[in-house]
This record gives sequence, C-alpha cells and structure tokens, in this order.
Amino acid sequence: MNKALLLVGMMMLSFAFAKAQSSNTRQDSTALRTIYNHNLTNSKSYDWLEHLSNEIGGRLSGSPQAQMAVEYTLAELYKVADTAYLQPVMVPRWTRGTPEIAYFKTTKGGKTKVNVCALGGSIATPAAGKSAGIIEVNGLEELEDLGRNAIEGKYVFYNRPMEATKIQTFEAYGGCVDQRYSGAEAAAKYGAAGVIVRSMNLRMDDLPHTGAMSYGDLEKEKYIPAAAISTNDAELLHEALKNDKDLQFFLQQDCTNHGEVQSYNVIAEIKGTQFPNEVILVGGHLDSWDLGDGSHDDGAGVVQSMQVLETIKATGYSPKRTIRAVLFMNEENGLRGARAYADQIFTKNQKHILALESDAGGFSPRGFGFDTTDIQMSQIQSWKSLFAPYLIHYFELGGSGADVGPLKNTGAVLAGLRPDSQRYFDHHHASNDTFDAVNRRELELGAATMSSLVYLYDQYGLATKLKK
Amino acid sequence: MNKALLLVGMMMLSFAFAKAQSSNTRQDSTALRTIYNHNLTNSKSYDWLEHLSNEIGGRLSGSPQAQMAVEYTLAELYKVADTAYLQPVMVPRWTRGTPEIAYFKTTKGGKTKVNVCALGGSIATPAAGKSAGIIEVNGLEELEDLGRNAIEGKYVFYNRPMEATKIQTFEAYGGCVDQRYSGAEAAAKYGAAGVIVRSMNLRMDDLPHTGAMSYGDLEKEKYIPAAAISTNDAELLHEALKNDKDLQFFLQQDCTNHGEVQSYNVIAEIKGTQFPNEVILVGGHLDSWDLGDGSHDDGAGVVQSMQVLETIKATGYSPKRTIRAVLFMNEENGLRGARAYADQIFTKNQKHILALESDAGGFSPRGFGFDTTDIQMSQIQSWKSLFAPYLIHYFELGGSGADVGPLKNTGAVLAGLRPDSQRYFDHHHASNDTFDAVNRRELELGAATMSSLVYLYDQYGLATKLKK
Repeated sequence: MNKALLLVGMMMLSFAFAKAQSSNTRQDSTALRTIYNHNLTNSKSYDWLEHLSNEIGGRLSGSPQAQMAVEYTLAELYKVADTAYLQPVMVPRWTRGTPEIAYFKTTKGGKTKVNVCALGGSIATPAAGKSAGIIEVNGLEELEDLGRNAIEGKYVFYNRPMEATKIQTFEAYGGCVDQRYSGAEAAAKYGAAGVIVRSMNLRMDDLPHTGAMSYGDLEKEKYIPAAAISTNDAELLHEALKNDKDLQFFLQQDCTNHGEVQSYNVIAEIKGTQFPNEVILVGGHLDSWDLGDGSHDDGAGVVQSMQVLETIKATGYSPKRTIRAVLFMNEENGLRGARAYADQIFTKNQKHILALESDAGGFSPRGFGFDTTDIQMSQIQSWKSLFAPYLIHYFELGGSGADVGPLKNTGAVLAGLRPDSQRYFDHHHASNDTFDAVNRRELELGAATMSSLVYLYDQYGLATKLKK
Repeated sequence: MNKALLLVGMMMLSFAFAKAQSSNTRQDSTALRTIYNHNLTNSKSYDWLEHLSNEIGGRLSGSPQAQMAVEYTLAELYKVADTAYLQPVMVPRWTRGTPEIAYFKTTKGGKTKVNVCALGGSIATPAAGKSAGIIEVNGLEELEDLGRNAIEGKYVFYNRPMEATKIQTFEAYGGCVDQRYSGAEAAAKYGAAGVIVRSMNLRMDDLPHTGAMSYGDLEKEKYIPAAAISTNDAELLHEALKNDKDLQFFLQQDCTNHGEVQSYNVIAEIKGTQFPNEVILVGGHLDSWDLGDGSHDDGAGVVQSMQVLETIKATGYSPKRTIRAVLFMNEENGLRGARAYADQIFTKNQKHILALESDAGGFSPRGFGFDTTDIQMSQIQSWKSLFAPYLIHYFELGGSGADVGPLKNTGAVLAGLRPDSQRYFDHHHASNDTFDAVNRRELELGAATMSSLVYLYDQYGLATKLKK
C-alpha cells in the first residue's frame, strides 16, 4: 500500500488507544481499512501457498512433505513473528501405496472400471485384490435390518448423497460423513468384505474423495478395506445394481498403516505489550490429504494464519495482547496436534481469549461461525457494521473448527472463518484440491477478515457483560 | 425436489393469497424454500448454459453464433413460458479476423512478443502491421499535458491498473474503463499511431481482455487501431520502457467493421392472472465477446433469466403479474437491444414494476444493487430476513444493469443481481470466460435468488408508502 496512507492509518490507531471504547468506531474503521489494503496489495499469503502447494505438495501426517512443510513454515514465521518454535507431537503415518483399481462385472460378463481411492487409515485388500458381491445401502442405519445374511462376504456400498438443498454445504457433509468415517466399522460387524463409500462431493464428476475413517473398537483381524467411489461412478454402480443385483465388485488397494512417527505443530507469536498472558490464537492445519496438494484444505488456512502475523508487523501495529499463530499437525487423521496443543496450554499461566481457525477453504470470506456464549456474541454483533464495507456479514453461533475444538471450556471464544462454501466440496480431499483452484484475492480477503477480528479482540478483550 | 414437499409448498402459497400482507412471512418463507429447492435439484439452467457455451460458443452481435443463440433460446423458452417471440433490432457487426500479433523491440534489437487483442470496434492496422514509438500514460487526463509533440506518431500505452483495494471489483473497473472505451478517441486527437490498453483484469496473467471502444465524434480518417495488452505484458512493457524510452512497438490486427445487420431480442412471458399489464422483467444479454464462450458474461444471466420462468412453471406457481424474460442483444458493443426494448414499451399500455438484470457473472449470489427511490428501498429492506437462510444479505442502492438502464424513469425498480465479484474480472471479455469457470450450484443459487425477488414483487407489487 501507499506508505503515506499507512502512516495515517497508524497515527489513527495510536489515537485509538487513548480514547474510550464507545468513541473508537472511526479509529477501528481506519484500522480495518489499513488491514484490508495491506492484504490486497502486499500480502505474502499467496506466495506462501504457492510454495506449500507447488514446491511441497500433499502433506499427509508423517510424510516427508509434512516435515518439509514444518521446516518451511517455521523458517517463514521466524521472519514475521517475535518468536517461532515447534511443539513435538506423535502422529499416525499411513501411505496409499499403488493407486487403487476397481471395477464391477455383471453376471453377463460386462466389465466396467470405476474410479476409487482408499480411505485414509484403511487396510489393504489381499495383494491380488478381492471380488465379491455388493449390496447398496442409504446409510449405516440400514445394516441392522439387512442383517448378517444379506451382508456377509459382500462389499457394502454406502450411497447416501450429500443433500443439494442445504445452502451451507458443511451441513450436507455432516449429514453423510458417518458413512465414510464409521461405515467400515459398522459393516465389519456383519461380516462385510469391505466398504465402498460415495464420495463426499455435491458435484457429479469422476474424482474419488478420500478422508479419515476409523475401525473404532473392532479387533484387528476384523478390519475390512474401505474405499471411496466418485459420484459419477456411484450413480453408475447404482444403476447397474438395479438391473443386476448379483454383479461382482472388485477392489485392489495396498495402503499401509505404519504406526506413529514424530512430527510437530509450528507455533509463532508476537508478544502483547500490555497483557502478554492473554493469547489470541489463529490457526490452520499443516497436514493435508495426499491426492491433491491441499491448497484449500488447509494450505489456505495455514497461510492466512501466518498472514495475520505478517499484517501486524508490516502495518506497524503493536498489539496489547499476544497474537499467536498455530499450524496444527494431523487434523485430517487424528487431531493429534490440536490435542497436544490444548494439553500444553493447561499447564501454562496463559488465558486464551480467542481461538480462530481457518479450515473451510480459501474462498471469498463471508464471516465467522462462533462457539461461545450470548455475552460474547453480543460483543461480536456490536462490531458487525465495521465489516460491512468488506461484505462480511455472517456472524452466527454454530461451528468453529476441529483444531480449536479441544480449547472449549477454557473461556476462549472459539471461531471459524466462514468462506463461501459452494465450491468447497468439489475439491475437498480430492486430486483437484490444487493451487490453481485458489483465487488470490479471495485468499487475501480471508486473511484480512481474520486479521480484523484479531485486531478488535486485541483492542477490547473479552466482553464481561451483555451489550444493550 | 420431493413431489410431496412441492405440494405442501404450493398449498401454503395458496393460503398466502387469502391473508393480509403482514401475516405472510411464513408463507413467503415457504415459497422461497420451494424456489431454492427446485433450483438446487431440478434446474435447467446449467444444461442450457452448457449448450450456449459448448455447442454455440462466443456470440458476438451479428455473428452466426448470436443467431444460433437467438434460435436456441427461443425454442427453449417456448417450452417453459406461455409465449415467446422475437423483437427485431439492428446491430453492429465487427469481426476480429486473424489473431493479433504484437511485440516490442529495444534500441539494442531485443524483441519481446506480447499478448494483445483488438478492442471491439477498432479498425485494423495496415495489413503488414505498424511499428512506432510508444509512450506510457496513467490515464486520459495526462494527454493534454504531454501534448501533440510527445504523442504524434506514437502508440499511447494506457497503463492505469484496476485498484486492488476496492472490495467491489466493479468499482475498480469503473475507475479504469475510460482508458479502454475512450482512449483511442482521446489519443487520436493528438495524432497517436494507435493505443495499447492494459487489460481490465485484477489478476496478473497472460490473457488480453477485449471490450467495447468508441471513436466518438472523430472523423473516420482519424480513426486509429486500439488493442488490449495482458496484465503481465503491461508490466513487462512498463519495465522495458523505464530502461529504453525509444523502444519500438509493433502491432498487427485485421479486424473489420461490417456495418449493421439484423438481429433480435428474445422475449418470453407468463401472463399475470390478476394484473396482466403489470410487468416484472428479468433479463440478461445473449451476445458476448468472441474470445471465450461468454459463460459468465452473460450466458449465466441468460440462463438464470430463463430459469425464473421455468421455476414458476415447474413449481406450479400462478403469478398475479406478468413475468417476462428478455434476452437482450448487443449489450456489449452498442446496447441496441436494450434501447429497442425500452422504445417499444413506451408505446404499450404496460407498467413495468421491476426490471432485474443478471450481468455480473454466475458466481455465488450476495444480493442486489438497486436504482430506485427510498420508498422502494424500504420495501426491499422489509424482505431482507426472508433471504437470510440463503446467505443473501446485500440490498443496497447503487447500480442495476446496462440493459435495464433505458427503463429508468418508467416507475420500475431497476435492479441487478450482485454475485460475489472477486473472480469476475479474471474472466471478463477474455478467452477464459468459459463453461468450466462456472459452478453449477453458484449459478443455480443466483437463479433462485432472482426468482425469489420476482415472487415477492409479484405478491406485493410496488410499495406506495415508506415502511415504518
């Protein structure tokens, strides 16, 4: 941005310190303008994302790429924060191995190849793959009615689609993801050969979408392979099964669980001048799935969190409270980083007042979802008009982010950036979650919006009474 | 959608007719839910757009493709409206000819190719192209100071970029587009050899963006060629000129103005049951530029307008007022269709109460811009909460659409759909304005949002007093 304008902005920020809360609207408005201007003209976020996506690539927990991402972001954070350091955390390591093969064969002998991918954490099939019958269900709740006789020895095909009529696509995801996460555990109890899950994708395409699954309390010898099938091929299989209930499904995958390996959360902060023990946390997760390069999930959140610190430094703003960026490891298949971080803060004399996560893609920001109290929501609503020039309008109770979840009941307001969600699940956990799908301005506006909320919390701290 | 749910929706709509305005919130809410559900599950808009984009392609006024688009949309509108017809309109026909060539040569002889395209309406260069010096300016207002001595015989290079700090990108466009539209006319008055205009694009890339230009009142023999240069190459040229003010710029283009040819607006309507002479208009423009296939500009607006009629028919809603879709011809280089439409309505005994245009791309809808009075804005604001579940929040005075502009002062509320604008100018008038850049859900949500506003105007007509 223009240096003169920046100086004017900074001068007005200084005035803000001297004035009472009620008279600060103009100063806050100037501060937000300064933040947005910086992000839209001099942000580092897009270049950081390009490196993470194109130079490093997919960053599955425990992979060499995840370690490269730790080292790269630590080095970059050194440049923009007062201090940067690693928090060790053990993470599961799972590898996909050879790309998966799947097809179905009708009783007349017709063979149709379908696009599948192993779910994260799944076991392999036998080395030569496995053919079996397949039974379609609309969700876990149908298994009990079908019973062991219908299921045993067959693949279970979970085909409940995401509901297109949900405007907030995360709700549609929430309505289906139990099939992916718990489908294998549930089907294994009835002796299934494996599970094939319709991809969590609102779009009809040929890309299978991976994601975490769990065997829960199953004994290891009962584990069965689990794979996702693309939405187009889910429809194809559904149609084929209508005509031929006895068709045979073949799946071959050789993924491996390697146990636990050493990894790290990356943490950096700018120390508060007045209340250094009050922490405002921003974060995203460094790990990603392996099919794409994890640009939206969650490269975007990582670089936006880094950018909050860079924005503070570059605009010369001196925060009262400590502003900390945490790049969590292993959000995707274990949440180990988030748990380790939460465990640690309870042993320190620090109070978190805001924990803000960006993990919903680098799309145009719309606002925030909050997990907090009425008193705190009242404070947030009082800031709404400051965000109107930036078309930020969504400040609602409901949802924050997986990584900040373990900080619930610490007194912190938990929050999640809410970008426009319509295209998120087109890319989520699939091979097209790539750098070219992220728009620079949308990414930058997200970082500016996060920085603005951080600024307001830094100025005012946590409200202690309901605003009239 | 589910047929039973549709029936329930329709029953509740019937109740709405019998109730007073103030008690209709629940019925309106149900109606909007029905509209959104239909659009997100059974819309034709995306299939229509695929045909316009992939089967027909770029639809420049007077081209065979524009005529194909007239015939296709007329045939499709027959299927979903009570009546569909053509309104004849004469339009300018301009063709690009051979793809343009441009490079610059430094005084030391280094030659660098740059990406350019002729602006719409420009004349050709001499057949072998033309080399000349080039002088960079930051806008039209610099020409007078430079004067004829500095400009004569050279290309004028207009390099004022769109301002990245504008959140509403159309404002950034408005701050630059005079260079493209009037740059040649202004430079010709000082004897320039031609003009090279930085593309109206916030992104740095290699794609030149065309668009309309005008020679104004210039005598024909003073016309000079005008071309756009990509943003990356504008920067390249800017850097080269810093070191070498005497470098030579070469441009070769063989575009042609063919005079006027016959074309048509495509119009279709569903007749109102109670107030057939009160018209609610929805529209977009059928013509596009020739470099891409015009999917965002304005295939999206065309199919969304068609979809408003389809939604009314498919949900069984019987409008009180006449709902009319107008697919305007020649918005891009003349606005002939819009003027012809406006001229015609003054001769008919019909009152337009709303004229709503979609011409800002098929991105996630955020709301509407209105060109109207305080009384009408008060009515619109009273509907705001009905749109909240769909994350539609922007209802502001300011801007509507070029094609509905000539209807100003008819008493109609003029409105423009406002989708998220961050990515629009990445594609606008360039070769990447293509079908793959449009997301199905975002397109459908836009059509649903338009249909919802149409429904509310149909229910309540125009407010006649300020709402308390």
